[in-house]
Amino acid sequence: MKREAPPLERPARAVRRVSSIVIVNTGDGKGKSTAAFGTALRSVARGWKVCVIQFIKSDRWKVGERDMAERLGVEWWTLGDGFTWDSPSMERTEAVAREAWRVAKEKIGSGTYQLVVLDEVTYPITWGWIPVEDVVSVISARPATVNIIVTGRDAASELIDIADTVTEMPNRKHAFDQGIRAMPGIDF
Amino acid sequence: MKREAPPLERPARAVRRVSSIVIVNTGDGKGKSTAAFGTALRSVARGWKVCVIQFIKSDRWKVGERDMAERLGVEWWTLGDGFTWDSPSMERTEAVAREAWRVAKEKIGSGTYQLVVLDEVTYPITWGWIPVEDVVSVISARPATVNIIVTGRDAASELIDIADTVTEMPNRKHAFDQGIRAMPGIDF
Repeated sequence: MKREAPPLERPARAVRRVSSIVIVNTGDGKGKSTAAFGTALRSVARGWKVCVIQFIKSDRWKVGERDMAERLGVEWWTLGDGFTWDSPSMERTEAVAREAWRVAKEKIGSGTYQLVVLDEVTYPITWGWIPVEDVVSVISARPATVNIIVTGRDAASELIDIADTVTEMPNRKHAFDQGIRAMPGIDF
Repeated sequence: MKREAPPLERPARAVRRVSSIVIVNTGDGKGKSTAAFGTALRSVARGWKVCVIQFIKSDRWKVGERDMAERLGVEWWTLGDGFTWDSPSMERTEAVAREAWRVAKEKIGSGTYQLVVLDEVTYPITWGWIPVEDVVSVISARPATVNIIVTGRDAASELIDIADTVTEMPNRKHAFDQGIRAMPGIDF
């Protein structure tokens, strides 16, 4: 075990103030959406208006988050169309994703929210359904007070470039890989 | 930009059921505590009793989380003594950490909670204030229905070994490194 002395010096302080930032939570581990959700509640605690757009609807998943978030006043849009492998029509699934992006653009552009979470938006971007250039330009041209959190695997380099904070969450060890089922209360 | 086709096959399913798991969120990036906090609220949404023990008290940080969590019925103990570089007496700071661990042991052992979060417990372990063997044996011998989340940098290998899920959150890019101040609503 690594053992070391407690730090006795205060770390350097950052001094620049900005009116909003862009956060990207990516990587193939757990915690991307969960961390975004935690941040969203922190925003709510400060009295911010928060909007979550969920680009992949995944039945039982995120029901708990949605419930908690709405109880605390977060606006939550589940616009995604479920897992692609369950899709009876990929055209429809794609259309639903584009519609979700249309709503997201509107919410961002309205300037009404201090935080907009684009949950799992990276997937429809990777599949070519939502043009990354459009996402980049909407985020770059957003009203100054709107913070953005993007979640999902394989975030495009264009998104990484415009982000202020990027956390990549790799999968180091996961219960699932040992055959352990997802647990209500922990995983959803 | 990496572009690929949407997956058409459902991923393999895990089938083992366990009564509880151990999660470790480590690494030097953001999101360790935030993800734990998100999971805690998911647990609350399922009607679980949840207890958070905060081993490092950090004035303005986590005030929002604490407020939200308590509003939703989470039991939240801030037992840590603040940043070590602010400590007027390292002996006291160490004693406070040990006391926090005593409380944590009691909460875990009681079997009353379906989730106990040991927030930032890795630091007093790394500093030699709380014996890692003790933490490992308490977690290993916990009542079967108690899930545990451990957060903090440099999680000891002994903790990684007993964990079911480990997410390492490295710092890929952080607003702070560009001199951007922590923002209320986002960072605390």
